[in-house]
Amino acid sequence: MITSRPEAQAEDEGDPLARLRQRFVVDDDGPIYLDGNSLGRLPAATAARLQATVERWGRDLIGAWPGWIDLPTTVGDRIGALLGAQPGEVAVSDSTTVNLYKLAVAALDARANRSVVVYDPHDFATVRYVAQGLAAQRGLTLRAAPSDPIEGLETSDVAAVVDDEVALVLLSGVNFRSGARVDLAAAAGVAHTHGALTLWDLSHAAGAVPLDLTHDGADLAVGCTYKYLNGGPGAPAWLYVRSDLQAELRQPIWGWFGQRDQFAMGEGYDPEPDVRRFLTGTPSILGLAAVDVGLDALIEVGMPALWAKTSRLVAFLAERAEVRLRPLGVSLASPTEADRRGGHLSLGHPQAWPLCRRLAQEGTVVVDYRNPNVLRLAPVALYTRYVDVWDAIEAMAEALQRGGLEGDTEPRSRVT
Amino acid sequence: MITSRPEAQAEDEGDPLARLRQRFVVDDDGPIYLDGNSLGRLPAATAARLQATVERWGRDLIGAWPGWIDLPTTVGDRIGALLGAQPGEVAVSDSTTVNLYKLAVAALDARANRSVVVYDPHDFATVRYVAQGLAAQRGLTLRAAPSDPIEGLETSDVAAVVDDEVALVLLSGVNFRSGARVDLAAAAGVAHTHGALTLWDLSHAAGAVPLDLTHDGADLAVGCTYKYLNGGPGAPAWLYVRSDLQAELRQPIWGWFGQRDQFAMGEGYDPEPDVRRFLTGTPSILGLAAVDVGLDALIEVGMPALWAKTSRLVAFLAERAEVRLRPLGVSLASPTEADRRGGHLSLGHPQAWPLCRRLAQEGTVVVDYRNPNVLRLAPVALYTRYVDVWDAIEAMAEALQRGGLEGDTEPRSRVT
Repeated sequence: MITSRPEAQAEDEGDPLARLRQRFVVDDDGPIYLDGNSLGRLPAATAARLQATVERWGRDLIGAWPGWIDLPTTVGDRIGALLGAQPGEVAVSDSTTVNLYKLAVAALDARANRSVVVYDPHDFATVRYVAQGLAAQRGLTLRAAPSDPIEGLETSDVAAVVDDEVALVLLSGVNFRSGARVDLAAAAGVAHTHGALTLWDLSHAAGAVPLDLTHDGADLAVGCTYKYLNGGPGAPAWLYVRSDLQAELRQPIWGWFGQRDQFAMGEGYDPEPDVRRFLTGTPSILGLAAVDVGLDALIEVGMPALWAKTSRLVAFLAERAEVRLRPLGVSLASPTEADRRGGHLSLGHPQAWPLCRRLAQEGTVVVDYRNPNVLRLAPVALYTRYVDVWDAIEAMAEALQRGGLEGDTEPRSRVT
Repeated sequence: MITSRPEAQAEDEGDPLARLRQRFVVDDDGPIYLDGNSLGRLPAATAARLQATVERWGRDLIGAWPGWIDLPTTVGDRIGALLGAQPGEVAVSDSTTVNLYKLAVAALDARANRSVVVYDPHDFATVRYVAQGLAAQRGLTLRAAPSDPIEGLETSDVAAVVDDEVALVLLSGVNFRSGARVDLAAAAGVAHTHGALTLWDLSHAAGAVPLDLTHDGADLAVGCTYKYLNGGPGAPAWLYVRSDLQAELRQPIWGWFGQRDQFAMGEGYDPEPDVRRFLTGTPSILGLAAVDVGLDALIEVGMPALWAKTSRLVAFLAERAEVRLRPLGVSLASPTEADRRGGHLSLGHPQAWPLCRRLAQEGTVVVDYRNPNVLRLAPVALYTRYVDVWDAIEAMAEALQRGGLEGDTEPRSRVT
């Protein structure tokens, strides 16, 4: 337990990952950034990599494509190493939303005699909306698992709603709001017992918490690259399809990047036999280049070392919030048990939005706001220090003590 | 008619658009680039714009999003100005393939009592494959218009296959291979007479030929930004939905960027009332920034001036090919009538692929190859000179005269 700022500084001095902070663009005089779960920081190497990519476009023009065309799978495999996936199971393509749609349709087509999709009513908006769209189009029933909005989804919640009518269990590995982790292996076990397929959205998990998709029996997964993977705003997303499902599953958007012998442009669509059949149109090369760079530090250190630090930082945040913020009306909006938490901690307060704005305007701390009254704080192992956690909580306490946060009518909006 | 190299040079000296070439990164000692219909050249301003975007990401982090979030529609409106669309009818989103899928489903849902899709069997692979995928999923019949692979699709070809069973007429404005233009207004007239909707792929038309979607009665359209719009490899695509159709049509991929009051993250999907309902997931900000820059020169000059030059360059190419290449076994693979051609000219030769490779390897001319025996040559008004056309044809004639092109077994591949 760290109980003073000097102790936090001492933790940083002994932190074997402290050196990684300089691999990112950080203004030490700027605000403490606890919003890497929304948009990860800029890696120091990204600008040069993009510059080189642009120069290659300008110089080699169409002749550069042979060096670009395999990026969806080569970068995908690097992401796969962080997910516990096998080579050939991950590709970078489209957005998380589009990948959710593609893989959900693939799963539903593979279970066409079933009519129920199980989902978490507290899941992120896009996950719920994609499910709603498919339910409307295909006449499916959406069945909500009875999860707790803060404590998260228990295996028993999944078991309560999965039966042999269920085609697909669609869940997130880490809840976007509370940070609650799901026991993916247990959920997959329940789904598979009933013959259902699983699709995980791992946007808030990949690069933050340890994942072992192979061991956990994952069928399908997707995630973004702009949070913990540091790929930049709106960077292309990834998708995972377990290798032994690839030949069986078909996604609905038949495009030329999914076609076997693509440049023959044959008459009929004949998809690649492997993960490339889940690609669609021409991939974003700038986006892929930025994602590739964003992965470097994560892959170098590996998820066990990152999680060892992240989990300590999150626990430290929770401790300091308990000591300093609870007396000021702040409640924990993440699971009470530390081992059920992911890479961010959520705190509730009636004036969460004006507090978020005040901290940002004063340049002390950048935290994330979510309707209606939650702040999300993500101490990212790659670039957040123990002293940042100390200082951030102190700044929040000071801002709350000063008061006057009522009556802020600024519209509430923040991009995840 | 230009009959000598000095005459071509004189044309360049009198060309009011000649100054635009310096707005692009061009190595005057490099090969003549006639492949801007595949990947447009790099605008000189793109690197700095991307650098500024990356710096903003690094500095403002999540705080930069308010300045980014409207880019899909603000950049979309700038593209719309080149298409003859109204403000609010174009958005930048996803890839061409994904947009084709989204808008085709929207149209088919709006004509759910009909079961036929009319398409052009000589259309680009992705257009055909998207149609095949939808036919397979929805039990639709694909009905091929009897188009000529070189002369293109006549209005009578459309009229021959459109009847009251047709839900959607799916065509490209300029054929990817032959460069043949379609009379879009006439095709729309035929479709509308029978109550069908139209969806145009304008990837090879936008920024190359004059378009007037409003006047032509277009319903839906899509296109890429990496050809004549100079957005870079795999840059995000655009989509167009006529304003009076927007409230009626729904696309199938329900994501949070299509949601009204997005950050409220309400329980049910409630799409925006306007073109934003055709957005899906988080947009690529690097891609949008590059597209925005790529449009500058086009918008500054306007399509009439660009087309005045492009059509002259294409005609000049055809003249020189007739004089110099026809005696060497090269045939015209574009429409015989000049006013049916778009922004590129296609030439057939049994050794098209080895010729393409020889020209590239010798660093004289970069042309585009398409299976099985076609070279595509695109003289782009923004950066191609009359003297480039002269020199390119001379280099091709020289390479053919030298002979020895038979027996090249190199695999054939080239990204469009």
